[in-house]
Amino acid sequence: MRIYVDAFGGDNAPLSNIQGAADAVKAYGHTVVLCGDEQKIRACAAENDVSLNGIEILHTEDVLTMDDEPKSILKEHKNSSMGIGLQAVAAGEGDAFVTAGSSGAILMGATFLVKRLAGISRPAFASVVPSDSKPFLLLDMGANAECRPEMLLQFARMGHLYMSQVVNKGAETTVGLLNIGTEAHKGGAVQQEAYQLLKESGLPFIGNVEARQVPYGAADVIVTDGFSGNIMLKTMEGMASMLLKNIKGLFMSNLLTKLAGAVVKPYLGDFKKKMSSDEHGGAPILGVRKTVIKAHGNANRVAIMNAIRVAAESAEADIPAQIGKLVAKAEVAE
Amino acid sequence: MRIYVDAFGGDNAPLSNIQGAADAVKAYGHTVVLCGDEQKIRACAAENDVSLNGIEILHTEDVLTMDDEPKSILKEHKNSSMGIGLQAVAAGEGDAFVTAGSSGAILMGATFLVKRLAGISRPAFASVVPSDSKPFLLLDMGANAECRPEMLLQFARMGHLYMSQVVNKGAETTVGLLNIGTEAHKGGAVQQEAYQLLKESGLPFIGNVEARQVPYGAADVIVTDGFSGNIMLKTMEGMASMLLKNIKGLFMSNLLTKLAGAVVKPYLGDFKKKMSSDEHGGAPILGVRKTVIKAHGNANRVAIMNAIRVAAESAEADIPAQIGKLVAKAEVAE
Repeated sequence: MRIYVDAFGGDNAPLSNIQGAADAVKAYGHTVVLCGDEQKIRACAAENDVSLNGIEILHTEDVLTMDDEPKSILKEHKNSSMGIGLQAVAAGEGDAFVTAGSSGAILMGATFLVKRLAGISRPAFASVVPSDSKPFLLLDMGANAECRPEMLLQFARMGHLYMSQVVNKGAETTVGLLNIGTEAHKGGAVQQEAYQLLKESGLPFIGNVEARQVPYGAADVIVTDGFSGNIMLKTMEGMASMLLKNIKGLFMSNLLTKLAGAVVKPYLGDFKKKMSSDEHGGAPILGVRKTVIKAHGNANRVAIMNAIRVAAESAEADIPAQIGKLVAKAEVAE
Repeated sequence: MRIYVDAFGGDNAPLSNIQGAADAVKAYGHTVVLCGDEQKIRACAAENDVSLNGIEILHTEDVLTMDDEPKSILKEHKNSSMGIGLQAVAAGEGDAFVTAGSSGAILMGATFLVKRLAGISRPAFASVVPSDSKPFLLLDMGANAECRPEMLLQFARMGHLYMSQVVNKGAETTVGLLNIGTEAHKGGAVQQEAYQLLKESGLPFIGNVEARQVPYGAADVIVTDGFSGNIMLKTMEGMASMLLKNIKGLFMSNLLTKLAGAVVKPYLGDFKKKMSSDEHGGAPILGVRKTVIKAHGNANRVAIMNAIRVAAESAEADIPAQIGKLVAKAEVAE
């Protein structure tokens, strides 16, 4: 696989992006094309002793920053490290694109440079989220603040396909509708109609899922509108960060508690790994013609490496084409 | 103050309710009227050595359970322990009502037995939620899945009044709008319009608040529709429960980690207290003619005692009448 990576997107760019790319080349044998200023990339790699074997560079000097308007990717920053990578992949020069840059810009770029699949009204921003049992796919997580019931059904189809093939590798993959109660009549008109559509969809729909159960892993795919999806995801992040800050603080009370902390620390590893989004490869934009993956803004080298791995797996499974077929079939059926 | 308490609502009824009532009588000198089966109340009190001094009993045998339809409080279960208490308070026999029973039923009962204030289209279910800094008021948290922008403005006015007078006792009380970004144009049409209304409302509006900041205490009053409010609240609960379960598990790894746990345990107290909703007195239903407080379904005696304290404080400050005036004034102005 040939994966294009935005070398200048994210808080830890370009170093983490270059390191993650080098790790992915070594681990999976993919070709990675780093997009961005060649001189800076080479200097950064040399300085940090990162081998660029198996890595190509698509040169551009421009960078789209977090302060830039998302739509600038279509004009002023069309040739930014994000923009040229997307265009190259759209033109068939690569199999997938990965960035840790601006969410708004990558969504805009994926939609209008890579372009939507026929029958997709709005692409969905999905996120693989860690839970107590196993990671689940949450979508939409912010691209579409308001959603019609048919959009939620489409999200469910796309999310189920992605999750079952790329993350669960064929294992059973359930779909739940995020709601404020489990009964079919709960929520607003959108949820009530979406419930009925999902029930009749042929998907392995387990019904409404309450937010309290989601961190335990209530379903493999959780479908909701972009407003509440974003609220849920950010609340999970905020609670985890706030609680861990307080618990760390407890261990700092005195020498004895610090000692207790030292005793427990080695056991934290597995838990941290389970709860870390670094392992899960980031957020796919579903409903566009190529695989586009957004890594977390503060992605480290591990997160970038895993985003490249997942991007390649999605491209290998030809997820975009499969989604295209699925949507076309559903349109005929409904 | 004369506070009516549903003796048979909640997972720990009637014992915790009777104990909490007795504690409140002792601590604050209020009269508490326990609603429910007199014989059972007296037997439970005697068995557990709880004094019923200062406590009256309003007898009824019927109980509305979690399996009953919310609307049954208006018909079959109008004379349940929840129903007769609400009616007594509505008739002016008491100052406030407290229950730990069904949320749907108490909302229905407050709306149609106690009745809405003039100018209130939909009462709001508000909740005092612990955060890293200080508790904040979240509303709506599930009564109104879909909201118009004017409803969110009304929620903000009611919530600000309640929070500033009952919880913050006159201290500065900020209002934030829950949204998926801080800029004024973020969110859907409802959020965009609500933002403008709040900006021009004269309230101490600090703008949009992202979910990630809420657990840290981003604003004193967080306004949102009942769907996302419920999602946020339940996600906070679920994350806290899931993370603490895992951390407890870490301490159980072996003898040494158990020892470390024993060292840290005494320091957990303050943190647990800060994060416990037991201290904050539960969830007021705002926009009805009397103070109605819903305690958590699993409320213990401390939570019930604090719910009674807060109910009396709200009644003393005459929050319902003040909300009535505020809404009438706002209607003239807008």
